[in-house]
Amino acid sequence: MSSNSHEKKRILTGDRPTGKLHLGHYVGSLKNRLRLQKEYDCHFIIADLHTLTTKPDKPSILELRDNIRETVLDYLAIGIDPEISTIYLQSAVPVVYEMNLIFEMLISLNRIAGLPSLKEMARNAHIDPESVPFGLIGYPVLQTADILMSKAHLVPVGKDNEAHIELSRDIARRFNQYYGEVFPLPEVLLSDVPTLVGIDNKGKMSKSLGNAIYLSDDSKTVEKKVKSMYTDPNRVRADMPGTVEGNPVFSYHDIFNTNKNEVEDLKARYREGKVGDVEVKEKLSLAINEFLDPIRERRNYFSQEKGLVEEVLYLGTKKMEEFANATLKEMRSAMGLYGAWNKIQRIAKERREREVKT
Amino acid sequence: MSSNSHEKKRILTGDRPTGKLHLGHYVGSLKNRLRLQKEYDCHFIIADLHTLTTKPDKPSILELRDNIRETVLDYLAIGIDPEISTIYLQSAVPVVYEMNLIFEMLISLNRIAGLPSLKEMARNAHIDPESVPFGLIGYPVLQTADILMSKAHLVPVGKDNEAHIELSRDIARRFNQYYGEVFPLPEVLLSDVPTLVGIDNKGKMSKSLGNAIYLSDDSKTVEKKVKSMYTDPNRVRADMPGTVEGNPVFSYHDIFNTNKNEVEDLKARYREGKVGDVEVKEKLSLAINEFLDPIRERRNYFSQEKGLVEEVLYLGTKKMEEFANATLKEMRSAMGLYGAWNKIQRIAKERREREVKT
Repeated sequence: MSSNSHEKKRILTGDRPTGKLHLGHYVGSLKNRLRLQKEYDCHFIIADLHTLTTKPDKPSILELRDNIRETVLDYLAIGIDPEISTIYLQSAVPVVYEMNLIFEMLISLNRIAGLPSLKEMARNAHIDPESVPFGLIGYPVLQTADILMSKAHLVPVGKDNEAHIELSRDIARRFNQYYGEVFPLPEVLLSDVPTLVGIDNKGKMSKSLGNAIYLSDDSKTVEKKVKSMYTDPNRVRADMPGTVEGNPVFSYHDIFNTNKNEVEDLKARYREGKVGDVEVKEKLSLAINEFLDPIRERRNYFSQEKGLVEEVLYLGTKKMEEFANATLKEMRSAMGLYGAWNKIQRIAKERREREVKT
Repeated sequence: MSSNSHEKKRILTGDRPTGKLHLGHYVGSLKNRLRLQKEYDCHFIIADLHTLTTKPDKPSILELRDNIRETVLDYLAIGIDPEISTIYLQSAVPVVYEMNLIFEMLISLNRIAGLPSLKEMARNAHIDPESVPFGLIGYPVLQTADILMSKAHLVPVGKDNEAHIELSRDIARRFNQYYGEVFPLPEVLLSDVPTLVGIDNKGKMSKSLGNAIYLSDDSKTVEKKVKSMYTDPNRVRADMPGTVEGNPVFSYHDIFNTNKNEVEDLKARYREGKVGDVEVKEKLSLAINEFLDPIRERRNYFSQEKGLVEEVLYLGTKKMEEFANATLKEMRSAMGLYGAWNKIQRIAKERREREVKT
């Protein structure tokens, strides 16, 4: 790993590659990661195996190919620096399979099945509660394998996922008790994970609801989407007083418009019925496009340099593989499970050597 | 695999390496395997990972080392022929970890949790029903990974384990539906699996009950154990009529004494109160020792040839590994999950090659 990996604490975080990332992801986690990567040794996982827990069908698997590339491209575009952080593909480091099975032995079904987040995942994926896949229940164990494989000290999550990290800590603690100190007990790096409402104001911005502005949208698309944004529905004319609070257009202004005076001015005039939606939205489009411009520039660079995204992911994955293999070696040695096989191989080899001699 | 693996159907069966095998194992499964290995391509698994589902603690893991060797030695002693069959160590073929995770996605928790056999396993291992390990619930999935990794057509089990193989068949069917025909649907090879009562007549012969005669017991030990056997408790003197039915001494005679006339004669005299327990037991000791003598001879040969047992297990495991890798390749290719990573590696390589040129 990087030369200063002994000084810096490690972080594991990442995304399931379900498609292009949007402003909601930026606000909720990506922005935070840009800060974290300067302070910590960050492992960013592209968690393709986790997508199988709710979508194991072949068409979904085939979609992963583009989605993985887009996710890495989005990471690079926002400024994740592959020189200091490690971006890797989960399925390409098979160590995770072995750790997953071992960790399944160290936690009870009841402890996992009690997590409300799993029920929510099943609901979101329209899975009948009666036929929740065993692998979906195992989600937090697979996640534990990701975290402990990285020997991560910290995992940045929101309140609703805190329980998952507590479960990972339980598994790590149990492992260390049974076999000896191998894993740091991962801790939650609680960020208050602000959520961004969708442009239709109908819940969180999300791909599936079709209410997202993507980091990769061009300026025209942003303009079009902002134009279509939900505002105060009771304000049918521009000269009527409008409500700023809970109005997504102003929430976006608060987040993306760096000209705070302009935002205050717009809010004041909006409340007094002295500004039209058109102007408020035009200024929002400008602000979002200004925010996205440097992201677009980096995205352009990385996507036009043929093979660069792949090279970044390849090198990150290889780096992670090396790290994971070292962790696995420690884990195996602590457990003593491979003592039998090592002995068998050694004795068999000695026998063959004796036979060659005679 | 062996040259005729295309003609013969494959079988997967085996044991958790929990200690030396006894007459109960012989009667229940080993005897049957001797017949099967002539007709089928048999894969015998030494299922060490399965022991972790109920005993993941370190002392139990360390015990595995001796137990694995003893189990293989028992196989060889009874006449399992490593020239025609494959004996392998489960944990030494890591393909099983990957298959296990994938298969966990293809079956529901409810489908597994409904198996009564799991509740029984938990009870036998003195596990509190509230804290059944997630990995123990996953037992039938890991078993499915063993079976499908072998592309087994048949799995010899008793009535009480039939449901496990049905579950494996469900997973194989689901896999084939989702991704294309890769796995034969494994079928139950139902043998009526006779059980042997323990020498104390308190339930099935088992190591944990301390009521077993081991395949590796010497003749003196057999004599001693048979002498201590439970017989008709109401018959306090040799001249009293005794009951043959359900009397373990006569059950053993029926199974191990090849002199059927002698057995009939003993039974008749026992019923009439014309034979003492001493004679009945002496004749049983002789019969069991006669049965065990060729087993002891082979055991002697294999244990005295230094490294031979290890060599057999090593070669079998390597053979299995090759087979499993081929199965994994097919599985991965059908799923298309590794398409992304393959593409990434190719493109990254092309980029590096271009860079070298310029």
